[in-house]
This record gives sequence, structure tokens and C-alpha cells, in this order.
Amino acid sequence: MADAAPAAGTAEAPLFERLCIIGPGLIGSSILRVARERGDIARHLVATARSEATLARVRELGLADTVEADPGRAVEGCDGVILCVPVGSYAGVMARIAPHLSPGCVLSDAGSTKGSVIRDLTPLLPKGVHLVPAHPMAGTEHSGPDAGFAELFKGRWCILTPPPGTDPAAVARVRALWERAGSMIEVLDATTHDKVVAIVSHLPHLIAFTIVGTADDLAQETREAVLRFAASGFRDFTRIAASDVDMWRDVFLNNREAVLEMLARFTEDAQAFGRAVRWGEAGFIEDRIKRGRKIRRSLIELKQA
Amino acid sequence: MADAAPAAGTAEAPLFERLCIIGPGLIGSSILRVARERGDIARHLVATARSEATLARVRELGLADTVEADPGRAVEGCDGVILCVPVGSYAGVMARIAPHLSPGCVLSDAGSTKGSVIRDLTPLLPKGVHLVPAHPMAGTEHSGPDAGFAELFKGRWCILTPPPGTDPAAVARVRALWERAGSMIEVLDATTHDKVVAIVSHLPHLIAFTIVGTADDLAQETREAVLRFAASGFRDFTRIAASDVDMWRDVFLNNREAVLEMLARFTEDAQAFGRAVRWGEAGFIEDRIKRGRKIRRSLIELKQA
Repeated sequence: MADAAPAAGTAEAPLFERLCIIGPGLIGSSILRVARERGDIARHLVATARSEATLARVRELGLADTVEADPGRAVEGCDGVILCVPVGSYAGVMARIAPHLSPGCVLSDAGSTKGSVIRDLTPLLPKGVHLVPAHPMAGTEHSGPDAGFAELFKGRWCILTPPPGTDPAAVARVRALWERAGSMIEVLDATTHDKVVAIVSHLPHLIAFTIVGTADDLAQETREAVLRFAASGFRDFTRIAASDVDMWRDVFLNNREAVLEMLARFTEDAQAFGRAVRWGEAGFIEDRIKRGRKIRRSLIELKQA
Repeated sequence: MADAAPAAGTAEAPLFERLCIIGPGLIGSSILRVARERGDIARHLVATARSEATLARVRELGLADTVEADPGRAVEGCDGVILCVPVGSYAGVMARIAPHLSPGCVLSDAGSTKGSVIRDLTPLLPKGVHLVPAHPMAGTEHSGPDAGFAELFKGRWCILTPPPGTDPAAVARVRALWERAGSMIEVLDATTHDKVVAIVSHLPHLIAFTIVGTADDLAQETREAVLRFAASGFRDFTRIAASDVDMWRDVFLNNREAVLEMLARFTEDAQAFGRAVRWGEAGFIEDRIKRGRKIRRSLIELKQA
């Protein structure tokens, strides 16, 4: 189907002849959908997944031209491959696909940690294959091939972290893919990326996972009153806490240093707030609240809120 | 205007002949609006505020039948008075209104802490005036008389914390007011209330105020990259952090013990999570994430999400 002429109105040639999505879940199936919809991202779409159920569902939904259970066979002949599996699986998947990657192929990913991706993929990278890690900063609380949609990346940032010396043409193709998916692009080194996402995303998730547990312990003491009165603050936290288990376990384990640094910084700051509460330091508390409001306003101006 | 016949379709007599709202901000002006709209909450609405600007705005919006700058004069002749000011102002306001409260008057409030309210109002309570503290668990990130709306309390909990021995008829009138505003009612003792709201609302706010500051410190190092990439987790936190300064300062200072207890519990739990990240304990991390998802589902079943 995608072998047909490009969609009406798109004059540009597809960026990839044959693009393989490994792991068509929320992110992967959204890439397939936007590629299918536009026609100028890839001429032929391949999808591969570990589970039979996912493969069957991708076939039912008609998300790819080729659905292939074996990842090695799936990447054969592809000039683009995007890993969309939890970052903890990269080393294992790479061991299976590396011997089958074609020279000139662009290997990218959609993982939330980038230092670990370079660490896990580089040792097995065949000569002539270009590694261009990417992190589309988009998602919902849902997962699986049914959760994806073509507009997921629209207006969201995608951060590329090509290692020094990466072929500029390969970087340009990955950049163009995400631009066509509607994203804004930023290029960062992997270390800076990992630090930034640790504070804006990973620590908030750690906190959300933790506080709903703290509340649940208390709920057992107060006979469910806590859950009954979940006010707006707590409700927002539970939305964040309803995230994919495998993905988030791997994020924490693969961005360890940055997550621990941010948790330590946050804990110091929370303790300072607690100390101000204990000693009735109204001025300190007001300053913190005002700062929160100011940052909220900055975000609104930056159109991130 | 509210002196006219009750709104069409409401057969019941107004609960109060003359109801005074002290502090017509987000909560107070929403009570005025729903009372005006229904006609069966009060026959005559009085509003008083400290600032000239608020008084003028309430007059312009036509929210009350009488708008009065002096709180003593405002409560004179009222059979219902609701304090809707930051809880730190209660003692000062009570000193001014107590000599003017009529015998039989029901004195209530809308504050987020309840132990401090009983502590601050009881010593000055005139004989024959009934204290029925209430906490409508509703709000938005906006404040002031323009921010209110009649539907604010619809489907939300309102917790009443009458001290032991309170006149049941007075409790019934406050309960009926909130029921007519669309709320679900629960009666708790003040100590349990303060503990529950500390975990479902006050601690989440403390965390939100803190983490946006932690991120802002980091942003100065990473030249705004943090703010630029505010992902969904952080964005949700900044929404919570955009709250009213005076209200939240007073909440923390007036629910000190419960907030510090919940902060201590949460910190222990967050440190345990951090330890699991450091030592790569995948099972522990998975359990925490699964627990978050489970609690999210409970909330959805309880219709709180």
C-alpha cells in the first residue's frame, strides 16, 4: 500500500526506502501511522515485535506493509531501523539484528535515556551503519499498538544525540523524519540530555510512583479515606503514575546517575521546605510558592504548558 | 434581587435568611454564584472583603445583595457566616466579627486545615453561635472573585468537622448548603481530616513547589534547556505549583504536624526507591510502578480521576 504514489500534496521523495520499526507500541505504532498517513517518510514499512499478540494486532490494524516476527529478517534490506522497545532490551535486540543490518543503514531509536543507548549499541555497530539516537518527548499513559496515533509527535520536542563524528547525512535524515512527524528538533550531547530529562521527566515519575504508594500505606490505616478524597494534587500524580512498567523500570535503571543526582537535589530542597514549615518561616514558604508560579508562567510563554 | 421569589423549579425554602461570605475569592464567589443561581441557599447574600478592589469587583459582578467593607457590620443580623479567607487570617477576622455575631448564627468556613480553625475560632466563639467547620475539596489554579463559578463544587467532596457536641440542626444546615451546591458530604474529626488532606493535597503541593525550584536551579546551569523540554511529568507539577501564595503559605503553617509527618513518610519511601535505582533492584522498581497503576485504577473506579 505504501508502495503506491506518495499521498496527495506531498511532493518530496520518501526519506527511507524501507523503514523498520522494532516494537510497534505507543511510540512505534505512532511512527508507523504518521509515516503511512504522509507517504513521504518511507516507501515500505516493516514492523517486528517480540509478542505474537502484538504482531497479530499490527497486521489487523494494517500499520505496516511487512510484519515479521524475526528481528534479523525484519531489518534485512532496510535503510532505516528505529528501536522502539524499552531501553533495557537494546543490547539483546542489537545482538540479534547487528549481523543483518545493511551497510549505509541509519539506526535510530526512541528511548528516554541516551547515554545507555550509545553504551549498549555502539560495541555491536557494524561498519557503515550510522547510529543516530533520538528521543521524541511525547507519550500518553497508554501503551501498545492500539494506543498510537499519527499526531502524537506534533508540536513536541525530539532530541537527537548523535555521537561526535556521526555522518551528517544520516543525522539529517533522522531530523527530517521527526520534522515530518511534526516535532521540533534539538541536538544535544547524551550526557546533557540525560540530566535534563532526569529532572523534567524521570524524577517527576519517581515521585509520582512513590507518593501514591505512601498514600496507599496510609489508606490502609485510615480505611480508604485517602483514596476517597484524592484532591486535585494527588489526582494529577496518579495520572503520571499510571505509566508502562517495563519502559519506566528500564528508564530508571539506565539513567541511574542523573536520576540519583536529581533525587538528591530535590530531597535537599524538600527538606529545606519542611524545615521552614516546622519553624514557621513564612517568607521562605512564600518565596517557594512565588517561584513555582513564575516558572509556570515561563512555561506558558514557552508554550510548554 | 435574591429577595425575589426562589428560582423556578426550586420548591424548598432558603436554608439561610441572610448569609455572609467573608472573602469572595475563588471559593467564596463560587458559593455566592451557586446561591444566586439556585435561590434555595440564602434569601439575602452579603459579601465582605479586605481589599477595596475586591469589593468593587464583587459589586460590578453583582455577586451579592449587600457588599460591605466592615466585617463586623457585614455579619450583623446574619444567620449564616462562611469564612473564605486564608486560614492564617481566621483569628484576626474572628476578633473583628465575634462581637457582632447574632445568637443562633451558624459560623462555617472553607479552609483546607481544620484543627487550626477550631483552635483559632473556638476561644472567641460567642455563646449560642454554632461552629461547623467545612472543607470543600475543590479549586483551580486561579484566584479572586472573577475565578469563581457556580459548578465548582459539583461532584466534589465537602468534609465537615463539627467539634463533639455541636448542635445537629446547625450541622444539618451546613450539610444541606453543600449538598445544594452539588457536593458529596463526609463528616470526619479534625485530626483525621488534617492527616488525609496532608497526603492527598498538601504534600503534593509542597513537592510541586519544591521540584519546580530544583529544576529552575538546574536551568540556570543548562541555559534554559530544562524549561524548554518540560515533559509531561514536569508540566503537571507546574500546574499544581501555580497556586495562591497566601492560601498555601497558611495551609503549610496551619497543618504543620501532619504535613511534616507525611513529608517524612514520603522521603523514606523516595529514598528506598533511590536505593533500588542505585543497586539495580528491578523487582522493587516494578512493584512500585505496578502499585501506582493499581491505585490509579482504584481512583478511576471511585470516580476521583
